[in-house]
Amino acid sequence: MNIQLGHSKQVRRAYGIDEIALVPGAKTIDPDITDTKLKIGGQTLEIPIIASAMDGVVDVNMAAQLTKLGSMGVLNLEGVQTRYENPKTVLEEISKVGKEEFVALMQKIYSQPVRKDLIKKRINEIKALGGIAAVSGTPIAAMKYESILKESDTDIFFLQATVVSTDHIGKEGSQSLNLPELCEKLNFPVVVGNCVTYEVALKLMEAGAAGILVGIGPGAACTSRGVLGVGIPQATAVADCSAARNEFEKKTGKYIPIIADGGIITGGDICKCIACGADGVMIGSPIARAKEAPGQGFHWGMATPSPVLPRGTRIKVGCTGSINQILRGPAGLDDGTHNLLGAIKTSMGTLGAKNIKEMQNVEIVIAPSLLTEGKVYQKAQQLGMGK
Amino acid sequence: MNIQLGHSKQVRRAYGIDEIALVPGAKTIDPDITDTKLKIGGQTLEIPIIASAMDGVVDVNMAAQLTKLGSMGVLNLEGVQTRYENPKTVLEEISKVGKEEFVALMQKIYSQPVRKDLIKKRINEIKALGGIAAVSGTPIAAMKYESILKESDTDIFFLQATVVSTDHIGKEGSQSLNLPELCEKLNFPVVVGNCVTYEVALKLMEAGAAGILVGIGPGAACTSRGVLGVGIPQATAVADCSAARNEFEKKTGKYIPIIADGGIITGGDICKCIACGADGVMIGSPIARAKEAPGQGFHWGMATPSPVLPRGTRIKVGCTGSINQILRGPAGLDDGTHNLLGAIKTSMGTLGAKNIKEMQNVEIVIAPSLLTEGKVYQKAQQLGMGK
Amino acid sequence: MNIQLGHSKQVRRAYGIDEIALVPGAKTIDPDITDTKLKIGGQTLEIPIIASAMDGVVDVNMAAQLTKLGSMGVLNLEGVQTRYENPKTVLEEISKVGKEEFVALMQKIYSQPVRKDLIKKRINEIKALGGIAAVSGTPIAAMKYESILKESDTDIFFLQATVVSTDHIGKEGSQSLNLPELCEKLNFPVVVGNCVTYEVALKLMEAGAAGILVGIGPGAACTSRGVLGVGIPQATAVADCSAARNEFEKKTGKYIPIIADGGIITGGDICKCIACGADGVMIGSPIARAKEAPGQGFHWGMATPSPVLPRGTRIKVGCTGSINQILRGPAGLDDGTHNLLGAIKTSMGTLGAKNIKEMQNVEIVIAPSLLTEGKVYQKAQQLGMGK
Amino acid sequence: MNIQLGHSKQVRRAYGIDEIALVPGAKTIDPDITDTKLKIGGQTLEIPIIASAMDGVVDVNMAAQLTKLGSMGVLNLEGVQTRYENPKTVLEEISKVGKEEFVALMQKIYSQPVRKDLIKKRINEIKALGGIAAVSGTPIAAMKYESILKESDTDIFFLQATVVSTDHIGKEGSQSLNLPELCEKLNFPVVVGNCVTYEVALKLMEAGAAGILVGIGPGAACTSRGVLGVGIPQATAVADCSAARNEFEKKTGKYIPIIADGGIITGGDICKCIACGADGVMIGSPIARAKEAPGQGFHWGMATPSPVLPRGTRIKVGCTGSINQILRGPAGLDDGTHNLLGAIKTSMGTLGAKNIKEMQNVEIVIAPSLLTEGKVYQKAQQLGMGK
Repeated sequence: MNIQLGHSKQVRRAYGIDEIALVPGAKTIDPDITDTKLKIGGQTLEIPIIASAMDGVVDVNMAAQLTKLGSMGVLNLEGVQTRYENPKTVLEEISKVGKEEFVALMQKIYSQPVRKDLIKKRINEIKALGGIAAVSGTPIAAMKYESILKESDTDIFFLQATVVSTDHIGKEGSQSLNLPELCEKLNFPVVVGNCVTYEVALKLMEAGAAGILVGIGPGAACTSRGVLGVGIPQATAVADCSAARNEFEKKTGKYIPIIADGGIITGGDICKCIACGADGVMIGSPIARAKEAPGQGFHWGMATPSPVLPRGTRIKVGCTGSINQILRGPAGLDDGTHNLLGAIKTSMGTLGAKNIKEMQNVEIVIAPSLLTEGKVYQKAQQLGMGK
Repeated sequence: MNIQLGHSKQVRRAYGIDEIALVPGAKTIDPDITDTKLKIGGQTLEIPIIASAMDGVVDVNMAAQLTKLGSMGVLNLEGVQTRYENPKTVLEEISKVGKEEFVALMQKIYSQPVRKDLIKKRINEIKALGGIAAVSGTPIAAMKYESILKESDTDIFFLQATVVSTDHIGKEGSQSLNLPELCEKLNFPVVVGNCVTYEVALKLMEAGAAGILVGIGPGAACTSRGVLGVGIPQATAVADCSAARNEFEKKTGKYIPIIADGGIITGGDICKCIACGADGVMIGSPIARAKEAPGQGFHWGMATPSPVLPRGTRIKVGCTGSINQILRGPAGLDDGTHNLLGAIKTSMGTLGAKNIKEMQNVEIVIAPSLLTEGKVYQKAQQLGMGK
Repeated sequence: MNIQLGHSKQVRRAYGIDEIALVPGAKTIDPDITDTKLKIGGQTLEIPIIASAMDGVVDVNMAAQLTKLGSMGVLNLEGVQTRYENPKTVLEEISKVGKEEFVALMQKIYSQPVRKDLIKKRINEIKALGGIAAVSGTPIAAMKYESILKESDTDIFFLQATVVSTDHIGKEGSQSLNLPELCEKLNFPVVVGNCVTYEVALKLMEAGAAGILVGIGPGAACTSRGVLGVGIPQATAVADCSAARNEFEKKTGKYIPIIADGGIITGGDICKCIACGADGVMIGSPIARAKEAPGQGFHWGMATPSPVLPRGTRIKVGCTGSINQILRGPAGLDDGTHNLLGAIKTSMGTLGAKNIKEMQNVEIVIAPSLLTEGKVYQKAQQLGMGK
Repeated sequence: MNIQLGHSKQVRRAYGIDEIALVPGAKTIDPDITDTKLKIGGQTLEIPIIASAMDGVVDVNMAAQLTKLGSMGVLNLEGVQTRYENPKTVLEEISKVGKEEFVALMQKIYSQPVRKDLIKKRINEIKALGGIAAVSGTPIAAMKYESILKESDTDIFFLQATVVSTDHIGKEGSQSLNLPELCEKLNFPVVVGNCVTYEVALKLMEAGAAGILVGIGPGAACTSRGVLGVGIPQATAVADCSAARNEFEKKTGKYIPIIADGGIITGGDICKCIACGADGVMIGSPIARAKEAPGQGFHWGMATPSPVLPRGTRIKVGCTGSINQILRGPAGLDDGTHNLLGAIKTSMGTLGAKNIKEMQNVEIVIAPSLLTEGKVYQKAQQLGMGK
């Protein structure tokens, strides 16, 4: 809070992950013996990467595949998978519509009601294929579908809103989410997000969250900083919320993982988020590029289909390889979007970090902002200007 | 004043709205119960947005429509509406001329004299349609048309110059505006601008201004920073002038609203201006994109037609929807230029601000500069590069 | 000197003119009564603009025209004008050669020797047309052509090198310039440059300079920062050298004007240089765009024809109007490159500065960098990428 | 360490060479009498430039030519030269493959084993042509080929890894490099790199390094900041490691040269690295543009052919002249990529630095980032956008 914004305001500078770089020190380590494990909500993932609960990213098959690869995918309970018996045809429509008709089509598709039977069905399908049943919903959905989730074989629930708070003021007579109560009632762990500040992260942990999603406004498919003015650069947000995690552990002995969510495209981005203090990351667009992804080469945000104020854009991300190649390589691309686990391990080796905990303590510098090729392309595509 | 610019100068860093972001805290609120009201010059607007007194933005019909929607439009008393009986044909000419002949055509069109009878006629037309009769003029016009304005049914007057001062040194024998006297003499409130500093804002309030327009040099259709070197980034300017408003209220008990004017394109921009301390905004180009706008897809600044030193450019903004859609949605675009009221309410909900006063106190961070889609397009068009 | 560049170096931040903006205050003034006069070397110029001693900018006719308009042009004594009886044909060749053959052609053209008779002839021609005979040369030329200059009717001499110093170490047996001696011997004033620091500016004034040219590395046709790593952003350089001028005046009572030279394209750039402390500016490319300019739509730097290490590029600047329009308007362009005097006067009026001295004391802020349309075009043209 | 990155991290700002500029002072010197010598590993080079051990840059002929010109080239012991009897055809394949098949081809070509006989052969060939036999290898290669190197007529060995450390943790049972032992055992000097910090540079000197290569992440053909998040801007890295050199000299009396390696494209870049404290530079892409370069107009990094995690890109650099022209001129291009020695000497003259030691102490400023023509082109080519 040391910058004067005119006479009346004290502000601070927040940093994005494009503005930082990691500094190699006096120690290196063989990448093969680094330990990248992420423990969250009773699950242990070899790869500290969770696929976003977005309709272009995770469906039943992708969720199962990700589990096999040592990662985890989250199924959106309020997306096309639970609104349509056969989501394939709907997803195909989305991938084929022109830019002009896109918003209208999305608004139409997402006006179809969510079906409880389909929620149960999808969870069962994931379990049948051996996958972790990780599902997500908004606070409203959490209240509405509480019983069906408890009856189903849910492994872990992601309670997600653009911004989550522990103190929501609703309309008179409206029902509001009581987070501590919900966390206690449910028979599976609840990961909560998104938040960006020390204070809110601490409150969510105190309310019983099994993990915290960090990130508002920085993502490629998210335009909330443009539409709402709201957002905080990711490096600072992750560093702040990680400090809350450490504080909470000191007080209670409980370690609640911090998951950086938004704006992450390359292996380097993942490494930098961990160096800022994250225990793992949630990513959307890099997974949407897998040939197995439901989006068929396209990716869009969860606020996109809003009937009143659509935010987020459909991005043509293309198909660049298999999900195996994207997560475990070997890389067929040299732009940092293939073999993400390999990148994490190589970076940890280079920086001499034996595990995620040590990686959280490597030296960081503020460096002149670097737009990587992938990001420039994505931005250009967002704007419909590139190839 | 803490930066050394060489041996001889102390300067400070000023911030633009593209350099800031708003930080969600521990509280959220249902957008439907947020209160966005702006009170200015005896009027209460549900939407804290005023349409600029620019010829491509406001004519009689637009002024009336904006009133109905809960906003307000200001008619330029020295534009085509008061120079031509039938401004439609003139506006059509402007929209059709090539880039090369544009400046010359503008200089010709605006050399036609302003007619007093047309001033009266336009004000009557607005009132007949149920609109607020808000009109604008330069200090010279204010002196020249004082009597006709007093006779007409003017509701609110915007006294506007690129830069307004309370201490103007004119040529020997020339008549100079006495602002306190003018404010007292007129039988309707006078909003004054533009200014950018604490000191000047305070002086204008002391002179009797009913509102202060803040912003010099940051607007899309304004090139005064390039042509004159003059300008101040908007976030700092708004923060400074808002501090003056608070100071003035403390001293006198009178609350004079601060209106951010210039460089505002998206809902996010509006939210950020309010967070810096503004009570409302004045916008041009976003309104010029309405199919009802007189500019027919084009927008230009008020200094453009200067016979000697034209500043400002004609920008092709296109038509993207109805004025209703732009102000109240539902949005058909996801780039932050539709449903501006919805964006303000959603942002306030996200940030836990019940009303404009609370929104003025949300946390701000300095963040790496973000070019939103709309701005990239506009810049590209300015450079003749875009579609 | 407050920034740590690694363990071993203390450095400071220097600012360019694109990074600053001027802040209007509580006073405005009618532009018509502002006084823009520059007194230098016994001449009084109404317009504080000097045209650079570049072959695409000033020839005999241009020098005379500029004098009539209240400005001044400097003729390069080591350019095509004094190497060729008929420079027109040579200039035509330069304007017609392709990018690939350009450097070779320049090296050939400038290998032709300078003729003493032509030096005298050009000076006489300027005087015959009523112009101020301002000419420029390097330190070597100053020594070589000293006698011919003294015999001619020279009004003012510009001693110019990329970097000028008062302490030059030459090869053994080589002759070195003694600046105090030269200034004393010559029967006309000597303006010296370029320099960028307080220390050197002060030494040059002590050596007898009648004016100081400030600017190394910032110009559009100059690539010395790229080729040599050498340069200093102009706002800081001008502020530093102006502080030396003030110090020198305090000690000696003599006022030595500071001329900002390099990187100036728009009226806004000129205003910002003056606000940093300059008494006037020297400009090349804006004058090269006049239809009367010898470059016929092209502009190139003085280091370009170096046989060994060519620096600077030929830029296609095009012809945008008459020299009268560029200096005194009315402007036919709205990008800040026409009516430069009008821009200075309007800016001074806006900022409430009655004369150059007051303009040197207006408030400056550091603002997010602004690339004006003109600059983007010029950069693109330099790279052969634009239209 | 004075910047707060959120609650939990203290970081510092690191600077790149595009962010600095050199400031001329009160002294200048005739470029012809400047001394640019670099002493390293028993060799004295008139030109303080070493050509990178990259397959597109140095082969036997290039190594010999560089020696004759007063420079030095390093042959990569693990590249195509030691894997193929006839590397020409392989290099031709690389220059002809399309962008899509490039990574796969590289992975195939570099899967061919290195042959000890070819190592010996190449060293002999260089010596036979009168060249300095400078060769490079990774730590693994150093252990593997130790005996063959000792038997050969090696002059100087460059031990290079992306990141080198004195404390490497290997897999259980794996052999790890003992740097002090290696340096002692070998009968020729060992230059070691790359590193970026004061601490590591000091440790490498204590281990017996005859020179230190500085630079991780800043190079044109290197994408390690994107892929791994790892890197440090070059100006800060060089300043830090140079401070270690000075410290080591103070303690031991031994002067170990610092070689800046990565991201250097123009003469200005070289000058700036020296001003930050370097004794010389290692460059790749500027040499790859010579018509004698093995890459035939293409350039790629050493991590590119990684079978698992390829990093770095093939860049089309084109052929712009002879190696003589690039190093010693005369320049046929004005963009700072020809006559690099001339640029160093001119810059030293301009800055009044008699030798490299004095050049290391010239004044530096932080300046707004400057993209030189060469860099814009390279970036454009990387993005597939340029010509």
